[in-house]
Amino acid sequence: MTRAMSLEIIGVDADDTLWHTETVFRLTHKRFNELLGEFAGEDELEAKLSAIERVNMKTFGYGAKGFTLSMIQTALEVSNGNVSSAVIGELLQAGKEMMTHPIEPLPGVEAALERLAERARLVLITKGDLFHQESKLAASGLGSHFSGVEIVSEKTPEIYTRAFARHGASAETALMAGNSVKSDILPMLKAGGYAALIPYPLVWEHEAAEKPTDHPRFREVETLAQLPAWIDEIA
Amino acid sequence: MTRAMSLEIIGVDADDTLWHTETVFRLTHKRFNELLGEFAGEDELEAKLSAIERVNMKTFGYGAKGFTLSMIQTALEVSNGNVSSAVIGELLQAGKEMMTHPIEPLPGVEAALERLAERARLVLITKGDLFHQESKLAASGLGSHFSGVEIVSEKTPEIYTRAFARHGASAETALMAGNSVKSDILPMLKAGGYAALIPYPLVWEHEAAEKPTDHPRFREVETLAQLPAWIDEIA
Repeated sequence: MTRAMSLEIIGVDADDTLWHTETVFRLTHKRFNELLGEFAGEDELEAKLSAIERVNMKTFGYGAKGFTLSMIQTALEVSNGNVSSAVIGELLQAGKEMMTHPIEPLPGVEAALERLAERARLVLITKGDLFHQESKLAASGLGSHFSGVEIVSEKTPEIYTRAFARHGASAETALMAGNSVKSDILPMLKAGGYAALIPYPLVWEHEAAEKPTDHPRFREVETLAQLPAWIDEIA
Repeated sequence: MTRAMSLEIIGVDADDTLWHTETVFRLTHKRFNELLGEFAGEDELEAKLSAIERVNMKTFGYGAKGFTLSMIQTALEVSNGNVSSAVIGELLQAGKEMMTHPIEPLPGVEAALERLAERARLVLITKGDLFHQESKLAASGLGSHFSGVEIVSEKTPEIYTRAFARHGASAETALMAGNSVKSDILPMLKAGGYAALIPYPLVWEHEAAEKPTDHPRFREVETLAQLPAWIDEIA
């Protein structure tokens, strides 16, 4: 079993790799901009929200609950306290809808996971709200393909190393697949592993980063369905 | 090593077992009641907040971020939308202060953990916001006593069984110590393990439950410092 020796674990990101998330966030942004349109233009609103999110991330971490609190704070600040309580209620509601939005696997994902699971153990590795990520995985119906789930507060080389160690493997014998250069690719390569970028049309601005140009353990593929072919090449 | 055979892992709860949390929540409740005093009496405010929290828990899970969103929702509802944006801002601020409140180990905890670590591997098992719980553990300075950390979305018999399995032990050879009958004691006993209740003077109402009256694997102790003696008895 040469193949099993060379690659023991495939880590798979969740949001925007297995199902849409950024689309839902963008729709919420749109609603946010409409609700606060009387106080500022879209560019100013987005800039303000982004700045507040960045500061709050140190206290809230990632996820929809923190984002909802940041929207409310932005509404208060950008309106100089003149925002109506009705609008605050709408923002709260928009946040809840984000958290309960139906989760549907992206096209082809389920079949791709089946083929990947024949090649190595699959571990879901995602950051964000523990409760919300577990709820989404349950709603997606994809849970049974994974032999493990790691919900982490940040994706760093050390955290990848630790996550794979928990499943009895080293990062050198693991591959990470995801849509974020900053979270799924760069730290995984730094940890010594393989990394596959599966771009999603929208990238959250706090995740923007330059992808590697020439790295022997990096590959960009169009969809998860193309990943088994690269894995067979590696083996 | 008879002792090591009989008890392999000691699971330890975090909030109100290692450090104060409920005290901080109560102070925030007090501030909430003061800020909304013009709209309703304290009993009505607390009842409303509790009811909203209970419903929202299905969407938010546990933790300070969800609690902050529930305070804001309660303020909007109890005032029929007449709450000022200044009060909403104060509630948001109160929530952030809860999340950044300094964490200090309860008296005697550090020495007790040292003595416990001589008897079995220690694993921190806590529910709540992943990011916030990790931040609190880091701030407490207690991290080095633990050979593992499990942050879970709920404490059920199945989740205890899985958490101990991740650390190579069965629930039968493990003990859980914590302040919540509902979360730390009952599900752990159901999983087949030992459970030690270390009461904290305040109990969050959603955690209220009757403690076991006569169970061979249950013991109530006054502080964590009294736990090593029971463990020596078990061994």
